Amino acid sequence: MMLVDDLLAGSRRALARVLTLIENDAAAAAEALAALFPHTGRAHLVGVTGAPGTGKSTLVNQVALELRRQGRTVGIVAVDPTSPFSGGAILGDRIRMRDLAGDPGVFIRSMASRGSLGGLARATSNVVRALDAAGFDVVLIETVGAGQSEVDIARHAQTVVVVEAPGLGDDIQAFKAGILEIADVLVVNKADDPRAKNTARALQAMLDLGNGSAGRHMALHHGVLMAAALPTQATAEPDSAPRWAVPIQETNALRGDGVPDLVAALDSHRAYLAGSGEMARRERSRAALELDSLLRERLLARLLADVDRQRLAALVDDIVSRRTVPHEAARLLVEESAP
Amino acid sequence: MMLVDDLLAGSRRALARVLTLIENDAAAAAEALAALFPHTGRAHLVGVTGAPGTGKSTLVNQVALELRRQGRTVGIVAVDPTSPFSGGAILGDRIRMRDLAGDPGVFIRSMASRGSLGGLARATSNVVRALDAAGFDVVLIETVGAGQSEVDIARHAQTVVVVEAPGLGDDIQAFKAGILEIADVLVVNKADDPRAKNTARALQAMLDLGNGSAGRHMALHHGVLMAAALPTQATAEPDSAPRWAVPIQETNALRGDGVPDLVAALDSHRAYLAGSGEMARRERSRAALELDSLLRERLLARLLADVDRQRLAALVDDIVSRRTVPHEAARLLVEESAP
Repeated sequence: MMLVDDLLAGSRRALARVLTLIENDAAAAAEALAALFPHTGRAHLVGVTGAPGTGKSTLVNQVALELRRQGRTVGIVAVDPTSPFSGGAILGDRIRMRDLAGDPGVFIRSMASRGSLGGLARATSNVVRALDAAGFDVVLIETVGAGQSEVDIARHAQTVVVVEAPGLGDDIQAFKAGILEIADVLVVNKADDPRAKNTARALQAMLDLGNGSAGRHMALHHGVLMAAALPTQATAEPDSAPRWAVPIQETNALRGDGVPDLVAALDSHRAYLAGSGEMARRERSRAALELDSLLRERLLARLLADVDRQRLAALVDDIVSRRTVPHEAARLLVEESAP
Repeated sequence: MMLVDDLLAGSRRALARVLTLIENDAAAAAEALAALFPHTGRAHLVGVTGAPGTGKSTLVNQVALELRRQGRTVGIVAVDPTSPFSGGAILGDRIRMRDLAGDPGVFIRSMASRGSLGGLARATSNVVRALDAAGFDVVLIETVGAGQSEVDIARHAQTVVVVEAPGLGDDIQAFKAGILEIADVLVVNKADDPRAKNTARALQAMLDLGNGSAGRHMALHHGVLMAAALPTQATAEPDSAPRWAVPIQETNALRGDGVPDLVAALDSHRAYLAGSGEMARRERSRAALELDSLLRERLLARLLADVDRQRLAALVDDIVSRRTVPHEAARLLVEESAP
């Protein structure tokens, strides 16, 4: 596939075209991704997340500038699960362009939701893969929001950075506890704010309480039917492996303060992943999750290809009118489709 | 099933036991849910969501108190997708208890994530169903966070309330645009804050721009393979149906200001749903989504029951080492399992 050859040879235009294929979920994207797949696995995938107002976009720009200073190339994927109306993604691109424009060592892609959040997660995963294959040393994946989208980051990223800022509300504690679980590195941005020290102390106290990122792997593995099939997980002895102590980095993204230390923390975490065997464990986990989701997709598509549309509509009617329990409707469809 | 009979007869103890079965995903829960299912569909399901710091828990309490004053019974499901370490859900319960304790017309259930967000969404859906069958007039479903969890609310709720508060950060605009899509009613809480009028004006401007909740149905339907099977959707003429104008309610949850008006807005929205045919459309949509997810689950379980564990582990290895593209691995597994 010529487009893929051009991408692998460093053509930014070919890369942009492949990313558009991926975003449009074109059939041609599957072919391109298959050709790119053997060339993936080299980039350091770093997720950056946090609530609105923490200044994480500015921080991502600063991290990119610092990596460039060190001679490393950077791909940025900004995932904005907001309205197609908002134009947020395009605006974001324009702001970033001021700092990073014209540097061939940086490639920025903003992705907005087009109605399907599941589709966005899949597209993001594939865009990250294409940037990895294109040879970027580091791929920064930035997401807005909290909750599920942050857990999804953990599936794409090797190192997850959670950005906090002082004074974002009083009842934010429970919220922080939730995202602490997926953090490999914590950042208190706007560190010049007099409340920053308090925020850092509160985060440290919660880390001490919750054992940091220990819960994350639980969240990733739980509920995945095929986890049982992974011998390296069954034989893994997490207690004997060295533990990663989640660092709290203070930054001022507007001035760039603390950014070199943050980049050093990212590098340390990657070294930890490689040295502890945790990288291999996460790779297997990610592969199993992807296989899980692809199998569901494929099996459902196969079933639906055989099912009569009238029958399907009648079953939906039966659920709506409470004549048939949803589980029973699913059972009937699977049974009827089985040869 | 005696437990179900007791629940339907109004036993709170039986209800609590069924909810525990549901949360533990016990086999007995499936039987209970099947028996409860014909008794569902009567309650008004109201989702309440918003970022941390907006005061939405306090607001939910006030709405419950107002509904009680009007003689209506209320179930509250507080979904807290945070750490099992945090104890957030338990703490939330205790705070609520002060206002609502001892009132048999109120039932509160807090749900915390136990590692699986997909599991949490399913459990929430079933807990709401049990409260519906138990005869509560209104079920309030409260979620923390933003993003995917809010879209999930839209799947459980008939009326979605999005709570905002003044002064929660400057770059919050894009975030707001995203959640506007799922809002049926917008609340600006902390309306005594001098910035509240500005927040309300900004929200109104975004509503005018984005056509309010028009995007929500898109998000719910998109990507659902079986949407095509729904004749009522194919023949629906959304442009001819009356449109719902998303109201912006100003409240001060601490003092209870504006809460009766908010409850009136919830009732108006329910009347709109029933009168416009939109309720039936959402019911069909929800049934199709649930069937979609149950089919995926059941098909995957059937496939995995037949697949050799060694074979599965070898395929995961092949993905990790980039020898096999994930899509190809899924294709092989499905092909091998087909008779």
